[in-house]
Amino acid sequence: MNFNYSERMQGIKASEIRELLKLTEQPDIISFAGGLPAPELFPLDHIKEIAYNVIQDQGKSALQYSATEGYPLLREIICEQRIKGNLDNPSPKNILITSGSQQALEFSGKLFINKGDVIICESPSYLGAINAFKAYQPTFVEVPMDEDGIVIEKLEEVLIKYPNAKFIYTIPDYQNPTGITLSVERRKKMVELAEKYNIPIIEDSPYGELALEGSVNPSIKSFDKNGYVIQLGTFSKTFCPGFRIGWIYAHEDVLQKYIMIKQGADLQCSTIDQRIVAHYMEKHSLDDHINKIIEVYKKRRNTMIDSMIKYFPKEIKFTHSKGGLFTWVELKENMNSADILREALEEKVAFVPGASFFPNGGKHNYFRLNYSNMPEDKIIIGIERLGNVLKKYY
Amino acid sequence: MNFNYSERMQGIKASEIRELLKLTEQPDIISFAGGLPAPELFPLDHIKEIAYNVIQDQGKSALQYSATEGYPLLREIICEQRIKGNLDNPSPKNILITSGSQQALEFSGKLFINKGDVIICESPSYLGAINAFKAYQPTFVEVPMDEDGIVIEKLEEVLIKYPNAKFIYTIPDYQNPTGITLSVERRKKMVELAEKYNIPIIEDSPYGELALEGSVNPSIKSFDKNGYVIQLGTFSKTFCPGFRIGWIYAHEDVLQKYIMIKQGADLQCSTIDQRIVAHYMEKHSLDDHINKIIEVYKKRRNTMIDSMIKYFPKEIKFTHSKGGLFTWVELKENMNSADILREALEEKVAFVPGASFFPNGGKHNYFRLNYSNMPEDKIIIGIERLGNVLKKYY
Repeated sequence: MNFNYSERMQGIKASEIRELLKLTEQPDIISFAGGLPAPELFPLDHIKEIAYNVIQDQGKSALQYSATEGYPLLREIICEQRIKGNLDNPSPKNILITSGSQQALEFSGKLFINKGDVIICESPSYLGAINAFKAYQPTFVEVPMDEDGIVIEKLEEVLIKYPNAKFIYTIPDYQNPTGITLSVERRKKMVELAEKYNIPIIEDSPYGELALEGSVNPSIKSFDKNGYVIQLGTFSKTFCPGFRIGWIYAHEDVLQKYIMIKQGADLQCSTIDQRIVAHYMEKHSLDDHINKIIEVYKKRRNTMIDSMIKYFPKEIKFTHSKGGLFTWVELKENMNSADILREALEEKVAFVPGASFFPNGGKHNYFRLNYSNMPEDKIIIGIERLGNVLKKYY
Repeated sequence: MNFNYSERMQGIKASEIRELLKLTEQPDIISFAGGLPAPELFPLDHIKEIAYNVIQDQGKSALQYSATEGYPLLREIICEQRIKGNLDNPSPKNILITSGSQQALEFSGKLFINKGDVIICESPSYLGAINAFKAYQPTFVEVPMDEDGIVIEKLEEVLIKYPNAKFIYTIPDYQNPTGITLSVERRKKMVELAEKYNIPIIEDSPYGELALEGSVNPSIKSFDKNGYVIQLGTFSKTFCPGFRIGWIYAHEDVLQKYIMIKQGADLQCSTIDQRIVAHYMEKHSLDDHINKIIEVYKKRRNTMIDSMIKYFPKEIKFTHSKGGLFTWVELKENMNSADILREALEEKVAFVPGASFFPNGGKHNYFRLNYSNMPEDKIIIGIERLGNVLKKYY
C-alpha cells in the first residue's frame, strides 16, 4: 500500500510544533500556546436550558438536515446584533453560516486560488489561515506591518507588482499573532485600493468584539459600498468555540459561490448548534456576556504585561495589545524561539514559536503568548519561569 | 467588482434541479426527493436529557475547542459498536470524526485528486460525492452495475486501461441512488483488485445498518487486511443528521493525512455534538433505535413498491431495494425525468431526476424515489399522482 496522493498534499505537512504542543495538554503545563477562550466564563446554565428546550420544542427540525445557507433566525440575528453601521445594509442574504472562521478561510482558498496564484497577507499572519490557503498551492506575498497594522504604501507596491493577485487577507482587529490593530485611515485606504485594483479583501475578524481598552475601529467592511470586502466572523471567541459556528458576510453574488462550496464540503453546519446559538442571542444579551469576558481578559492581559516587564530581560520587545487574546514577543535576531520552547516545556510553560506565522519562513526570533486561557496566578508563575529561560540568552 | 475566481469554480455550479427542489420545502408537497430520515423517530426525550447533562457536567470542555481527531470516547464507541468483525482489528487510532460523510468525500477529493486524474465510480453514483469530487477537477470513469452491484470484470478492464486512476468510489450497501447491494463475492474480489492494482477503495456506507430484509453483507473493509479500503460511516441515517457527525475508518498512515486536511478545513467537529452522540450510545442502545427505524422504513418501502405496482404504467422498471432509503426508476429511453419533475411538481409531488447521478451526463430517463421521509398515506397519494403523470407517456 503506497498510494499516489495529490500534489497539494506536499504543502499539508504534519507540524513538528504541533507535536510539541500536544505536550501542553498535560494538566501541569502552564499554556500560553492556544487561542482558547476562558471556559469558566461559558454561560452553561443558560446554554443547558436552551439546548433542552430547543430539542424538546423543535427537535424534529433541530436534529434534521437543514439549509446549506444556515438557520434563518441565526442569519437574521447576526445582521441585527453582530454587524453594525455598515454602508451596504446587510441582510440575511449576505450571511452564510460556516464551521468557525477556519472553514471560511478554507473556502476562500478554494474559491480564489489556482496553483501558483499570488495572495497577499500581513507579515506575520494567522497560521491557521496560512495552512488553509497552502492546500491550494498559492504564492504568498507578505506585506510588512508597523504599530498601525499593514503598511499601506507597501501594500500598494505589491498590488502594482502583482496585478493578478487573488486577494488581500487581513486580520485588522487585535491581530493574530501580533495583537496590532489597523488604523481607521488605513482601513479606508484599503477599500480604495481594493476598488482601484479590483481585488477582494478577506477581513478576518474573530477578535473585533474584544476591545480591552477604548473601542474597536469600524470594520473594513463598514467602508465597503461595492462588495469588495468579504468579512469573516465567529462565535468562537465571544461565546463558545465548541459549537463551531462562524459566518461569512459578503455581497450576494460572492456569497452564492461560497454557498455552493459549502454544499459540496459538508452540506451544512450542525442544525442544533445553530439553533442553540440563535436562541441564546434571542433570549439573553451576548453583549453583556462579552462585557464579562472583556473584564476578565483585561486583568489577564495586564497581569501578563506587568509580569513580562518584571521578569523578561529588558532588551526583549513585545506588543501591548489593546484587545483580543495575544501579545507578540521579539527576541534577538540570532535566537530561535523553537529552541526556547523546548527549554520552556521542561519548565512546564508553553507558547507558539513565531516561525509558523510567516508563510515564506525565515523568521525564527518571535513567539506568541496567549493570555485568555490562564488565571492570573498561573500567568505570573508562567511568565517568571519563561523569563528565567530567556535570561540565559541576555 | 468582477473577481477572478479559481478555475475549479467552473465545475461547481448552481444546479437547476436544486432550484426546482427548493419548492419541495412547501408543506403541501409530497416529497420523495431528499434522503432525509424520518424525524418523528428521533429519540428526543433521551437526547434532551443527555444534552442537558453533558452541558451541566462537562460544559467547560464540551463547549471548548477539542482535538481534530475527534472525541476519544466517540472514536472508541464507533470501534466497539459500529464496526464489527473486521480483519484489521480497528482501534480509535483508525477513526477520524468528520462533519457527516459529505466532508469525508470532500477530503477524499482533496487527498487524492490532481486536475485531470481518473477516478472510478459506479454508474450511477451518489450526486453529493460527484459534486464534492468535481471541485478537484477529475475525469470520472463510470463502471456499469447489474443487480449485484458494480460489474467486477468491467471494473478490472477500467483498472487496466487507467493504471494511474486515483481511487474506486463505491456505495456497496443499498446504493444511493439505485438501492442495489454489492454481492459478498464481488466485495472480496474488489479488495483483491485494489491490492493487485495498488488503488484505494473508498467505501461509502451510510445505509449499511438499515437492512430492511435479511442482513447486510459484510463490508468491503471487513475483507481488507492491508489498508486498501477507506470506509466512511455516519450517524445521519441511523440517528440524527442535524448533528453532522460521521467518520472515516482507515489505516493509520492514511488517516494521518485526513487529519491534517481536517485541521486546515475546520479544525474539528462540534465538541458538544460529538459528546451527545457518544453519551447517547453509552447510555442507550443505538441498535434498538435502528431496529425501530427499520420497522417503519420497511412498511414505507413496501407501501411505495406496492403503490408503484398499482399506479405506475407496467412498462416502467424500478429496483426493489432490500435496505436503505431509495428505489430507482427507469423510464423509456427518450423520456427526460426533469420534464416529468416539472409536471409532478404541479401535482405537488417531488423526486430527484436521475441525470445528476451520472457524472459524465447523458442519461435522462431515470429518477430516484425516497421512502423514508413520508408517512404511508402520503406515499400512496404521491405515487398515485406520479403514476397519473407517467401514464400520459405510456
